[in-house]
Amino acid sequence: MMDFPLTLDVILRRAETIHGDRPVVSRLEDKSLHRYTYAQMAQRAKQLATGLQSLGVNPGDPVATLCWNHYRHLEAYFGVPLSGAVLHTLNLRLHSDDLAHIVNEVQDKVLIVDKSLLDIWHQFESQVNVSHVVVVSDDNIVPEGTLGYEDLLSMGQPTTEGLPELKENQAASMCYTSGTVGKPKGVVYSHRALTLHTLGAGLTNAFELREEDCILPAVAMFHVNCWGFPYLAAMIGAKLFLTGPHLDAESLLDAFHSEKVTVAAGVPTIWHAVLNKLDENPQRYELSALRKLFVGGAATPKSLMQEFQQRHNLRLVPAWGMTETTPIGTISNTRAEPFGSPDEEDFTRRVRQGSPVPFVEIRARGTEGIIPWDGKTMGELEVRGPWIAKAYYKRPDASDRFTKDGWFRTGDIVSIESNGSMKIEDREKDLIKSGGEWISSLDLENAIMSHPAVAEAAVIAVPHSKWSERPLAAVVVVAGKTVTAEELRDFLQPLVAKWWIPDSFKFIDEIPKTSVGKFAKAALRKRFVES
Amino acid sequence: MMDFPLTLDVILRRAETIHGDRPVVSRLEDKSLHRYTYAQMAQRAKQLATGLQSLGVNPGDPVATLCWNHYRHLEAYFGVPLSGAVLHTLNLRLHSDDLAHIVNEVQDKVLIVDKSLLDIWHQFESQVNVSHVVVVSDDNIVPEGTLGYEDLLSMGQPTTEGLPELKENQAASMCYTSGTVGKPKGVVYSHRALTLHTLGAGLTNAFELREEDCILPAVAMFHVNCWGFPYLAAMIGAKLFLTGPHLDAESLLDAFHSEKVTVAAGVPTIWHAVLNKLDENPQRYELSALRKLFVGGAATPKSLMQEFQQRHNLRLVPAWGMTETTPIGTISNTRAEPFGSPDEEDFTRRVRQGSPVPFVEIRARGTEGIIPWDGKTMGELEVRGPWIAKAYYKRPDASDRFTKDGWFRTGDIVSIESNGSMKIEDREKDLIKSGGEWISSLDLENAIMSHPAVAEAAVIAVPHSKWSERPLAAVVVVAGKTVTAEELRDFLQPLVAKWWIPDSFKFIDEIPKTSVGKFAKAALRKRFVES
Repeated sequence: MMDFPLTLDVILRRAETIHGDRPVVSRLEDKSLHRYTYAQMAQRAKQLATGLQSLGVNPGDPVATLCWNHYRHLEAYFGVPLSGAVLHTLNLRLHSDDLAHIVNEVQDKVLIVDKSLLDIWHQFESQVNVSHVVVVSDDNIVPEGTLGYEDLLSMGQPTTEGLPELKENQAASMCYTSGTVGKPKGVVYSHRALTLHTLGAGLTNAFELREEDCILPAVAMFHVNCWGFPYLAAMIGAKLFLTGPHLDAESLLDAFHSEKVTVAAGVPTIWHAVLNKLDENPQRYELSALRKLFVGGAATPKSLMQEFQQRHNLRLVPAWGMTETTPIGTISNTRAEPFGSPDEEDFTRRVRQGSPVPFVEIRARGTEGIIPWDGKTMGELEVRGPWIAKAYYKRPDASDRFTKDGWFRTGDIVSIESNGSMKIEDREKDLIKSGGEWISSLDLENAIMSHPAVAEAAVIAVPHSKWSERPLAAVVVVAGKTVTAEELRDFLQPLVAKWWIPDSFKFIDEIPKTSVGKFAKAALRKRFVES
Repeated sequence: MMDFPLTLDVILRRAETIHGDRPVVSRLEDKSLHRYTYAQMAQRAKQLATGLQSLGVNPGDPVATLCWNHYRHLEAYFGVPLSGAVLHTLNLRLHSDDLAHIVNEVQDKVLIVDKSLLDIWHQFESQVNVSHVVVVSDDNIVPEGTLGYEDLLSMGQPTTEGLPELKENQAASMCYTSGTVGKPKGVVYSHRALTLHTLGAGLTNAFELREEDCILPAVAMFHVNCWGFPYLAAMIGAKLFLTGPHLDAESLLDAFHSEKVTVAAGVPTIWHAVLNKLDENPQRYELSALRKLFVGGAATPKSLMQEFQQRHNLRLVPAWGMTETTPIGTISNTRAEPFGSPDEEDFTRRVRQGSPVPFVEIRARGTEGIIPWDGKTMGELEVRGPWIAKAYYKRPDASDRFTKDGWFRTGDIVSIESNGSMKIEDREKDLIKSGGEWISSLDLENAIMSHPAVAEAAVIAVPHSKWSERPLAAVVVVAGKTVTAEELRDFLQPLVAKWWIPDSFKFIDEIPKTSVGKFAKAALRKRFVES
């Protein structure tokens, strides 16, 4: 068989030649829409690659981006790896000290930054040493001392001639974890991992994207390859809608409606906001084209899934992944058993994170070793596969996250059913160890959030002299409604074991969130436990 | 990223653990049905692998099969490569001299043979040197001097312990071309090629198989990996129906009906027979589950596609591939442009062989070099990709089939549309070169076959003093109907260029077929030209 390397230029060539007339739509900062085709994107990606080469970027050099989701960021997704360089997406929600640390650790040579995000750059500019700052600007006017993105493109040519031959195991991109524990850690993705991830993510038991689809990733291109959607959409030729900075519910719903979006993906907080906006005015949006809303980044609350389905006939599909898994690990899509049964009947099954996609393998380790797949026993999820990290970038101190026999320890506490359908019971660090037993903070949160007066709830462990730890619930009440701790205790009685019911309820205005929209439990611990 | 090899044991593990309860159904020789699950298949495949090891089979050793489609052949598809050995499927329709030549060239160590096919084996047994003959028998009674398949399994264990670690570039299987030109040539498939082929074939713009599907490959497991369906069905968990020797239209339709088959695949001659049977009694079969009939091995006649659609609301989907391409190269599935238009409107588009599946790349070379993608210019198709052969087994003399820059020369004359949709205009050797222009024998055959009185037609070139070559048509008339050469000439007038109309029509009882069901034009040439 031919020695045909698995590299991203194959996907770009396909997008240009087979799906060349399919559209890419971007919402710009001023909310206007920019439209072009994959053929145009490919031409410009090649100009970017050769332009970077003229700038002195060599194979292996890291090129950072600090950008929202838009067509120029898409060009960087292809153009930077095409030049042999490494696309390094910076998370614009991280603290500037973290950004400085990351840029220094990676030694980024070039930074491509949105003009509207220059303020973030200026906060850590003095702490780092970047050779070239390239500014993406809708009006083509850029500050002195920087290079305009369009000027960089005009330094290049729409050709791959003169570009280095790519090897499948060379680095194509990198991304840092959102750093919920300790300093953010870097993960380097090879061309091979990204292309195999694209093939896996396109299968019917994963995202099942088709050429006639329109995909709107309501997930950031600055985080973990935007869940692989840019590469998948290009390989399949699906229409791609990029949101710019406009991730508010109204902008998303407008796009769903007017661009006939068929598939979207986001974290639960995004879908909470969309649900609220839909509830305000259910008739305003025509969403019959929308067939799947993928949910990841945090466990999907069952009530959210039910409300979407029952009130708006929209289907949420939970998925699971991490920065370390490129990210697609499992999708709750694989199995409808018994086939043909009405989905509404089994939200409990559908809200699980689902089965691994082909070529990802899972197992979980409990106190007694590898757990059985009985749907009950809990253990820490371990994964392996061709797009799973085998180490962190320059962090030998974190080698305990990888087992000796070659699996990645995820830190997620799960149960697994007999057909491999996995459920995140908790993050290892969020689990409440009470009296020798485990309480899933997630399950408890979901039970509390199913109360009609509760908007959001986060449960954390509080040290306890007798039980070792006990749960505390931080609760956000729906505007205009009221509920007491006593009422919540009564409400929980039939839903969870008696000893799971929190000793303490704290009513707060908002659950603090991390840079990627997850509950920031560390902040809650600081407020309610350590203070 | 992890160094996770792309090997077939990953697919087997997945079939066992994630899709373990999904069914595999085989029609045995006596037409009874055998049912078991992928979990049981996996257990037995492991017994086969370790059993072969006990028999003295070493990594790299070729293990031949001479079998119909059934569950034990499926076990060999996984078990032989799992042991590190190479599955070598023998085409039971080849001449015994060819089989002897092939077995000697490969030096097969073990032969797994169906009891009902022992006659074929006895025809060339004395010319070859095979260490172990393993007989697959539904009644478990096998001839002296041979080993029963079930006895071989009982020498093994349902475990992978002690089996060698597989490398992705090692050989997993091999298959010989059907030898329409010269001696059959062998192609060796690596684990990597087969697993990537499985990922590609599962995508929405390829076979788009789902777990809830029931796939019936009406293509032989002894030829080119059964188009990859055994591996794809196992990876996706689709129900798999294996036909045994019963490829007659009635058996196929019975299976479609009673097993609720959703997807099937076969050569045009199979679908011709199925269409005739359906026409005889359209009410007899309930086929509403059937969503796609893939057609490959030869170009799909447009009339066949139209008749299936118009009379039975069944959709034929042409695909293209070769022994040298594992085999999936292109599928006419990729693009419905404009999306949403009724398919019936554009049979001309749909009957093309379609666009390459992701990671296969195509181009075509005409007399003036690489041809433009204008849908008109003809050239010889060249392909490359991770599951395309780079050489024939032990045949350095055939190196002219591979270009210096790494493409495989298919010998198919094609045109390519702007979106990469390819149409086979002819086999290079079947093209009629008349007066400096090319006549596509395929197009001409399709035009003739669109006459209601014509069952089948094959066109070959006849030497001509003035025009160099002129077409001759061999025609099979539908039973009970009549048609004259003159009537056919009149019929063709509005359909093809005047100079395409054959000088000669020969009415015959049957078009001779090759071992895999294609028109055997060499036999027609012998009869009408060389005699």
